[in-house]
Amino acid sequence: MIKLYGYYPSGNSYKIELLLSQLGIAYDFIHLDLLKGETRTKAFLEKNPNARIPVVAVEGEYLAESHAILWYFGENTRFVPDSQMERGKMLQWMCFEQYHVEPNIGTARYHLTIRGTAPENIGLMLQERQKDARRALNILNKHLDGRPYMVSKRYTLADISLFAYTHVAEEAGISLAPYGQIRAWLDRIRAQPGFIPMTTLQDLEKQPLAEV
Amino acid sequence: MIKLYGYYPSGNSYKIELLLSQLGIAYDFIHLDLLKGETRTKAFLEKNPNARIPVVAVEGEYLAESHAILWYFGENTRFVPDSQMERGKMLQWMCFEQYHVEPNIGTARYHLTIRGTAPENIGLMLQERQKDARRALNILNKHLDGRPYMVSKRYTLADISLFAYTHVAEEAGISLAPYGQIRAWLDRIRAQPGFIPMTTLQDLEKQPLAEV
Repeated sequence: MIKLYGYYPSGNSYKIELLLSQLGIAYDFIHLDLLKGETRTKAFLEKNPNARIPVVAVEGEYLAESHAILWYFGENTRFVPDSQMERGKMLQWMCFEQYHVEPNIGTARYHLTIRGTAPENIGLMLQERQKDARRALNILNKHLDGRPYMVSKRYTLADISLFAYTHVAEEAGISLAPYGQIRAWLDRIRAQPGFIPMTTLQDLEKQPLAEV
Repeated sequence: MIKLYGYYPSGNSYKIELLLSQLGIAYDFIHLDLLKGETRTKAFLEKNPNARIPVVAVEGEYLAESHAILWYFGENTRFVPDSQMERGKMLQWMCFEQYHVEPNIGTARYHLTIRGTAPENIGLMLQERQKDARRALNILNKHLDGRPYMVSKRYTLADISLFAYTHVAEEAGISLAPYGQIRAWLDRIRAQPGFIPMTTLQDLEKQPLAEV
């Protein structure tokens, strides 16, 4: 059985859960509590010296980085386009996600919602991240005008990747109200076969986790 | 003819030049001076709303993001591994480059060498970027111990990607002296067939650029 080392409220591990669910691939989820330093143990650093989740254990190897894992499971499936140019465009938007969406929404959300730090104690960094996130959301919103999905007319890895942090922008203190195209696209993703929602912090508090 | 919109001293556009050279693909290089805002013109924003180079014009489309462009030209060539796991690992290291190498070495180098700002005027950001860059270089150096290239025994897109900023770390104020494995690997890359060096700022000053 594939093992997925992740952290439930992490958008990066959720990307993998969403794809595996849509591919019908079973996996064991091993929740590591980032706030308790569980990705910095000697045992985990042997799996990923970069001390980050998600990591999958598959074929006797450990594979890290959400987009590399998405590609590993997604290539030659319906979630990757058939044409060379569309594969290029899909990766273009995944790179955009990694550079402009995840670091901004992800970091602001981590401090505001996951750590629960008061905005006035986060300081200027929060405002800069929110500003850069809004710039990225503007680009996405314009791109989605007249397009059902990020690339071509098909739901691909680029949609999975961008959904993960975009749909929780409010948890980073960023209203999605101005972005009508994005909101309609989020609804199209939620309607995909095999869609599963992200496990929230509230869900986590309700259910005790299995021992690793 | 393929057009490559770039900025000569940019590691991100150099990645594409290196791969195209090694594939023997001819292209026109269109140099945009970042310092003069030439990626923020209306004409360029129509090519890439994200206002960043590199962008290639190919098949009547514009493709952005260095790693997406590397993949576009590199897939099904000797620069991408044959096995699914090795393709995953290659992308893993390219994601690592985008998150931990380029933003740190690239940003510090941009201020120190490209803009020529005095270190004391860059401030804390510089020290943080250098610290994070050294952490990334440590991970790379350990990974390269006993390995000729980043993935398997073959030179791949991951090596091209990581070479671009790693080999100019000194221009970001980071000595490569402590990283013997990295230095040996840089030499192996320089010895690859079709290797071309990056155009430096000094080169640029010597030769007038063609009009765009």
